[in-house]
Amino acid sequence: MPELGFVVHPIGCVRSSLTNRAEAPRQGSEGAPDAWIEVNREFAEGLDGIDVGDQLIVITWFHLASRDVLEVHPRGDVRNPLTGVFATRSPDRPNPLGLHRVTVRELAANRIKVGPLEAIDGTPVIDLKPVLLQTADS
Amino acid sequence: MPELGFVVHPIGCVRSSLTNRAEAPRQGSEGAPDAWIEVNREFAEGLDGIDVGDQLIVITWFHLASRDVLEVHPRGDVRNPLTGVFATRSPDRPNPLGLHRVTVRELAANRIKVGPLEAIDGTPVIDLKPVLLQTADS
Repeated sequence: MPELGFVVHPIGCVRSSLTNRAEAPRQGSEGAPDAWIEVNREFAEGLDGIDVGDQLIVITWFHLASRDVLEVHPRGDVRNPLTGVFATRSPDRPNPLGLHRVTVRELAANRIKVGPLEAIDGTPVIDLKPVLLQTADS
Repeated sequence: MPELGFVVHPIGCVRSSLTNRAEAPRQGSEGAPDAWIEVNREFAEGLDGIDVGDQLIVITWFHLASRDVLEVHPRGDVRNPLTGVFATRSPDRPNPLGLHRVTVRELAANRIKVGPLEAIDGTPVIDLKPVLLQTADS
């Protein structure tokens, strides 16, 4: 069982009109705006091949999350019974990674406009991956 | 632009009959076997609410990947033009996270049998998330 840790280095960050968790929708499909992803110049070459209209999975690091939470009331509603975080999309979890399926709206050098994206301004971006069409998901 | 890093601590690891990258399919849908995920006991409470038949996204850390690669020939075929890693599912990338959509086959205390899973034996597991049905993906 691995006990060590691995260091993730953000490849960029989210630039969004959403500035705090309270105003952010819980999922992109729940009314989130488009947002820019600013990719650090050292990683910009990794964007080659991404086109407007592509569907991507954006992986973020929820930098405001609590990492010692193992159970939550889903959707923050105490009427929902306590549930293990691995059965929910809670941002509070041991490794607070967020998965966001978005469409590419616009490309500009080392920036990509995508949407809808519920992550708030300043959220670190860890990775981008294409959606695999053969399975229509993830 | 964040320059710092974040430390991910594996929540468990993959126990699979696949033991090296050469024999592993490139995607789970390409003939991968079922495999066990052993979750460290300190995180087992986070599994509450996961049921047999659920669809999960398993997030792994490709511990054998090269992290300084920004362009690859997709599917390792030199006939495919060099493409930015963020437009591919290459395991070689700055933060070598893997996304795997699987179905839960069996539950046993702190272990979950899932499949199909193309990650090899010993691959660290970073997170588990439910597939969101309202978008049928990610």
